[in-house]
Amino acid sequence: MRAEIISVGTELLLGEIVDTNAAFLGRRLAELGVDIYHRQTVGDNQGRLVAAFKLALSRSDLVLVSGGLGPTMDDLTREALAEVLGARLVLDEGAVRHLEAYFTRLGRPMTDNNRRQAYRPEGADFIANRRGTAPGILARYQGRTIVCMPGVPRELETMFEEEVVPRLFGTSTGEKRVIKSRTLLLTGLGESAAENAIADIIKEQTNPTIASYAGLGEVRLRLTAAAAGAEEALALIEPLEAKLRERLGDAIYGVDGDTLEGVVAEKLIKGGLVLAVAESCTGGLVSHRLTNIPGSSAFFRQGLIVYSNEAKKELLDVPDELLEEYGAVSPQVAEAMAKEVRLVGDADLGLAITGIAGPGGATPTKPVGLVYLALARDGECLVEKHTFSGQREEVKYRASQAALNLLRLHLR
Amino acid sequence: MRAEIISVGTELLLGEIVDTNAAFLGRRLAELGVDIYHRQTVGDNQGRLVAAFKLALSRSDLVLVSGGLGPTMDDLTREALAEVLGARLVLDEGAVRHLEAYFTRLGRPMTDNNRRQAYRPEGADFIANRRGTAPGILARYQGRTIVCMPGVPRELETMFEEEVVPRLFGTSTGEKRVIKSRTLLLTGLGESAAENAIADIIKEQTNPTIASYAGLGEVRLRLTAAAAGAEEALALIEPLEAKLRERLGDAIYGVDGDTLEGVVAEKLIKGGLVLAVAESCTGGLVSHRLTNIPGSSAFFRQGLIVYSNEAKKELLDVPDELLEEYGAVSPQVAEAMAKEVRLVGDADLGLAITGIAGPGGATPTKPVGLVYLALARDGECLVEKHTFSGQREEVKYRASQAALNLLRLHLR
Repeated sequence: MRAEIISVGTELLLGEIVDTNAAFLGRRLAELGVDIYHRQTVGDNQGRLVAAFKLALSRSDLVLVSGGLGPTMDDLTREALAEVLGARLVLDEGAVRHLEAYFTRLGRPMTDNNRRQAYRPEGADFIANRRGTAPGILARYQGRTIVCMPGVPRELETMFEEEVVPRLFGTSTGEKRVIKSRTLLLTGLGESAAENAIADIIKEQTNPTIASYAGLGEVRLRLTAAAAGAEEALALIEPLEAKLRERLGDAIYGVDGDTLEGVVAEKLIKGGLVLAVAESCTGGLVSHRLTNIPGSSAFFRQGLIVYSNEAKKELLDVPDELLEEYGAVSPQVAEAMAKEVRLVGDADLGLAITGIAGPGGATPTKPVGLVYLALARDGECLVEKHTFSGQREEVKYRASQAALNLLRLHLR
Repeated sequence: MRAEIISVGTELLLGEIVDTNAAFLGRRLAELGVDIYHRQTVGDNQGRLVAAFKLALSRSDLVLVSGGLGPTMDDLTREALAEVLGARLVLDEGAVRHLEAYFTRLGRPMTDNNRRQAYRPEGADFIANRRGTAPGILARYQGRTIVCMPGVPRELETMFEEEVVPRLFGTSTGEKRVIKSRTLLLTGLGESAAENAIADIIKEQTNPTIASYAGLGEVRLRLTAAAAGAEEALALIEPLEAKLRERLGDAIYGVDGDTLEGVVAEKLIKGGLVLAVAESCTGGLVSHRLTNIPGSSAFFRQGLIVYSNEAKKELLDVPDELLEEYGAVSPQVAEAMAKEVRLVGDADLGLAITGIAGPGGATPTKPVGLVYLALARDGECLVEKHTFSGQREEVKYRASQAALNLLRLHLR
């Protein structure tokens, strides 16, 4: 089966928003073993939408459309689809009732433009939208399938998983060629260094293939195998993964959808450990990332953002002499912060980050990007020095990544 | 002039990463008055790359390519371009010296695969990369122009602004049709409500057009005008913007690239005010967003993340009785947090957020998404109740957005 993705919205073409839906659908289609050769992006214009739908239906078995189903006047996917199918738009009474119930539940009045969403091309099916107002539409056309989903990512994702996949793939016989991928997530070394370390392995590989991608503060290695079935594909990936793990060791922090904060959180929860965080240059980002993990209250009770020297002194008793002699961005102050936040927070571990995120704040001896990390535990304190490149937000993120990695390596 | 964007990378097709480069280039091309009708996404495969380049050069005057110029073996843009141009790849000695100097500056050895980046098709020009190792390539082909840029967003953006725009548009005579856009950023009301409030204005508009987009915790209204020149286009936008501002009032927090945290930071800096933040359910996100703004140390000295009841008691003296009688997620506790963090932080303003981010933590009377905000100033304390929809990270973000908006409206 050959699939094509069409992303609808002038805001996409003009770059007002980035196309996360196409990325989501691409990922899921790959996992489902469906080939994707084409992706189109089209604006909110009925004529161009019709042309894009026709082109897609001429060359692909399955067309997945995102966007243009909402209540506003520039949402034209319904109209374009009806034109392509040669069907008129009909009001679906079930959909009207569903919309009315949705607004009643929210305690808000239903505006007139919302009623537009209850229209569908005659002969096409509605797809339930559990997370929003715009239903999806599934239509068949000359043996091809076209599925229109709303553009709001959480609505599209839920609809795709809960409604579209079962309808399209539920009866799959498994006869088609299956592609399986596994991504190894690395942090603490760059893309070139990572690829150099495994250049000989990459060279001899054809199935699975290995591709490396540089992310902010991490590198991803994607292993992709093709086989007759999912199990065979996974069996091809396993020995290669083992070989890469032997070579790269601790640099691998996780796989696929793992996050560094998720991996760290799991280790803390398993170990029954409590962490206290003192952040200066990261400004709350480390705490934010850790508290993105459901259940983080098991290990995270408090974090102190000691942005100014006064805050470092008042909240963490960092001695004046340390600040004067070494400066706030120094191994000495990082260590004092980590030790004290551990005590103040009555925690097993104290993590501290102090650095210069830029663009201001640099001195002749302390450049933008200089960051000290410290991790205090009973009787010991590890201190690390890093120099990160990039803009302010990149430095903050790289520093948070290194801090979480320090924690991860310590918790092995 | 008609432009086309080609994004290169199997990781894009398979959805491993989202295509922010295409969004950036789309936005900039629109601002430069260049029409974009096509966007293609292609994997790391020389044959398919060649086909995509040929198709693009057959229908577009300007082809902007991102990605596939790096040092690794799956970077094939150079090779594909050479094939399309019918030119051989030659080693550029200037580029070799540049690469060597780059690695010397970083204090790292230059690996062999990095040398690949110094090859370009004979007859094509290199474009300097001030932020990374891979140079860009500019080639002319049968009166068309093709520009290849690295896929790392900060490298692409800098190269496009500093090198590509001056070469392609520097001598523009201004005779072409210019499109100008202005985006009004709203928070505190939904997309349907916003569009309903201005439905009559939208209906009568053709140039400029108005399009509305729903973001997380905000709505964007984009006004787009087309005219012979930039000034004429802007003159069309101005009266419409004034009309919308009169109708929507305080819901508009900024325009174009503004951020809510940036707007709030500017007001705090202008007013010479110091803010202290106490976060529970947002876990550091409000502080993180505020400290993303360069110069935030002028108003932000400390933030307390009081995630547990113990932390609320110890760091902010929240009375046991309040926690027991009303619970941590209550207007009473929000108010106590805001007042105390203001005192502890010796600040003009104290901002507090307490709520249930989910998925756990809900009670029969307190659902996931319930959030109380409080803002304490000398002699007064504002308290707000919100119920946000969405997953954990969405609730955190919406809560941070509402907290920053409370601050913004108070600072008018």
